[in-house]
Amino acid sequence: MYLGCQFSLYPMTDRFIEVILDGLTAIRAAGDRLRVETDDISTLLVGAPEALFPALQGCFVRAASHSGHLVMNLSLSRGCPGEPDDPICRSPALREAAQPAGPGRVDAALARETPVTPTGIATAAQIALYPLGRPDYMADIADCIGYLRRAKISLSPKHFCTRLDGDAAAVFQAIETSFLAFAGHDDHVVLTAVLSKGSPSVSNRAA
Amino acid sequence: MYLGCQFSLYPMTDRFIEVILDGLTAIRAAGDRLRVETDDISTLLVGAPEALFPALQGCFVRAASHSGHLVMNLSLSRGCPGEPDDPICRSPALREAAQPAGPGRVDAALARETPVTPTGIATAAQIALYPLGRPDYMADIADCIGYLRRAKISLSPKHFCTRLDGDAAAVFQAIETSFLAFAGHDDHVVLTAVLSKGSPSVSNRAA
Repeated sequence: MYLGCQFSLYPMTDRFIEVILDGLTAIRAAGDRLRVETDDISTLLVGAPEALFPALQGCFVRAASHSGHLVMNLSLSRGCPGEPDDPICRSPALREAAQPAGPGRVDAALARETPVTPTGIATAAQIALYPLGRPDYMADIADCIGYLRRAKISLSPKHFCTRLDGDAAAVFQAIETSFLAFAGHDDHVVLTAVLSKGSPSVSNRAA
Repeated sequence: MYLGCQFSLYPMTDRFIEVILDGLTAIRAAGDRLRVETDDISTLLVGAPEALFPALQGCFVRAASHSGHLVMNLSLSRGCPGEPDDPICRSPALREAAQPAGPGRVDAALARETPVTPTGIATAAQIALYPLGRPDYMADIADCIGYLRRAKISLSPKHFCTRLDGDAAAVFQAIETSFLAFAGHDDHVVLTAVLSKGSPSVSNRAA
């Protein structure tokens, strides 16, 4: 099983190189638990979710400590049949969280969550879950949305995705649970997310 | 059938608001053939591909006429069973292009393409195709990659996505064909893309 993401930081400032490089220093905290490859479009992270999600949140928080508008773009993937089985991705957390369709998995997902430490960063996000290869994938998406409605973020529907607003830590927890909990351990699942802080756009939403 | 996208422009400059607003003026050329909704995270476009793709390319080209590093983030969707049937999305182009799995569809996709007018904008992109709800989705992805290998862009594999380098017009044509041609007319298909120009990152790739 192969698990990881491609992600990018987009700081809307003339100093974008400095902000990106500073954000990426937070990835180093994961040490050799993550494989990291950066090119001119994105950074690849490969590893277990136990290392991956703290690294992503650390990177976003560090980059967001700079003033101004920042976006993180994220495509998470697990179980792609075109990727190799990789020991670095083995994950007790995924083994415990991943549930094929069936009753009770929304409650189970909520019960597994522990309180997060707020970062103080108001974050607007939109996410989309793509469970691949199964005719009943809309049941996975429906359960994921059912979970998000009860999670510690505010939710609004959009076409093609779901909007989440809350503290960055709560948004990352909602993304992690959405990605891990609504398909079987070996199923192929993709989750795309855009996280934004500091947008100057007029908005009537609470951020 | 419902067809459209959520997209965002990320100009890596202090003048990002000016560049985004200027880029969005190009969407207006589509008039009432596209439904347009912008919030602080992204812009929704809903309509037929005949209107959608020229608007997206026009927007990217206009924003890219400003100096510096620019990224467009794009999530295209068609046939989502959770969205309504909408007359604005009806499309002879999709009706002609969309092909369920079977021999000959790569050749057919290439044969349908007409020469594009270069924009002069060297563009690096990465895309991922997600045909949903079907156990044989990897055949759709394999055919799409087979098409991209013969299209007028250079291709390099990455984990979780495929990298394309070429003129912006050729990249948009490759994205449009990838999105339309490798699943049936009523199938649910998502394509995510990141397009980048002007990155200062050291790269050994031809852009």
